[in-house]
Amino acid sequence: MYLFALSTAEQGASLALFEDNVLVFESSLFNRQTHSKGLLPVIEQAVNTRPGMTIDRIDGFIAARGPGSFTGLRIGISIIKGLARAVSKPCAGVSSLDGIAFRFCHSQLPVCVMMDAKRNEVYTAVYQFQYGKLIQKSPEVVCLPSTAVDQAGVSALFVGSGSKVYRDMICRQTQGKAVFSYPAMDGISASALVISAVSDNGVFDFENHPLHPVYLRKSDAQIHFEGKTGA
Amino acid sequence: MYLFALSTAEQGASLALFEDNVLVFESSLFNRQTHSKGLLPVIEQAVNTRPGMTIDRIDGFIAARGPGSFTGLRIGISIIKGLARAVSKPCAGVSSLDGIAFRFCHSQLPVCVMMDAKRNEVYTAVYQFQYGKLIQKSPEVVCLPSTAVDQAGVSALFVGSGSKVYRDMICRQTQGKAVFSYPAMDGISASALVISAVSDNGVFDFENHPLHPVYLRKSDAQIHFEGKTGA
Repeated sequence: MYLFALSTAEQGASLALFEDNVLVFESSLFNRQTHSKGLLPVIEQAVNTRPGMTIDRIDGFIAARGPGSFTGLRIGISIIKGLARAVSKPCAGVSSLDGIAFRFCHSQLPVCVMMDAKRNEVYTAVYQFQYGKLIQKSPEVVCLPSTAVDQAGVSALFVGSGSKVYRDMICRQTQGKAVFSYPAMDGISASALVISAVSDNGVFDFENHPLHPVYLRKSDAQIHFEGKTGA
Repeated sequence: MYLFALSTAEQGASLALFEDNVLVFESSLFNRQTHSKGLLPVIEQAVNTRPGMTIDRIDGFIAARGPGSFTGLRIGISIIKGLARAVSKPCAGVSSLDGIAFRFCHSQLPVCVMMDAKRNEVYTAVYQFQYGKLIQKSPEVVCLPSTAVDQAGVSALFVGSGSKVYRDMICRQTQGKAVFSYPAMDGISASALVISAVSDNGVFDFENHPLHPVYLRKSDAQIHFEGKTGA
């Protein structure tokens, strides 16, 4: 059974192909051109990792469903829906925050994921793992970085792009007790999306992971429109 | 400053490109054809991630120096030495085991890396991290899986390909107390090689990481030769 996963929730993209729960390809690109230009060739490359493999042999498709870049999410979710529809296979969505948190699933400290949401806010949730298994996860919210730190507590592992943007502030607020991930591990990993989705019971449950975008806040366009119309 | 890292110590390959300590590209391929056929195109792809980027703008090259597949190591080290020599830049070697262990540098449990070395042996070392920093590392050895478990203790996180091949045995020997990584995180990560190398002082020290292969045991060819000649 083949599973293909994609995240375009951040600048750049991450892709992964699994064969029977074994990772056979993963690629992460961080540049400004990926979403509009480079994505389909890398999907092709992932598929070509296996001799004789074709897209219609993929049994299920997974996308990061958000939060994250509005345009990025729309492109990624559209590609995944398009591919899945074309070959009549199911598709599903997994939280972008899970795609970062599960890279640190062996941390005994609470894992506070902070994705930079611009405008002095972060997309955040706090995860508690025990021996690789998720025990508890706070609701996903968009909020001030200081509110995210309050939620995580002083002794937590801070990960994700927002944890670097607001590093100084986090250090002050936690009296230097915060622990930080290496920046190279801050991005959403497509394979971590799959690990999150199968970690419950070892199989991917498409029905419980519908592919709808989760933006957590209104888009600029929507805010401007409502401002103009008084909606 | 650009750093390029490559591991071919296992089946498949992992590549990463860093710009000023920021990861800009990472790719991991797990198939049987990678080393001989697919490697240079992926290196090209990594370089092309950055517009206007060329191989001679890379400031340093890093290879997994072993332990691992003899042929794989020779190919990877040769490519890295060739690229570095061609553009007159330094190259360095980092332990393959570090390239797995540093994926789990936020584990409070000791991390026992076990790479399957075939012939009922594993390449192994035990790492102790504290808040992402390496505190202690046992010498790298090739040994029986049971010896590796003895060294790690019953309450450890077992990672790497060998931890899955010998999973049942590890469970028995640790009375079920062993913790295991998800298989998708068992491979050598080229970015983890770089994280390991810069984690000491934030800069890559080429002089302290010479690029010599570390096989930990004799090759089949050498054993056969010595058997024939009585050497």
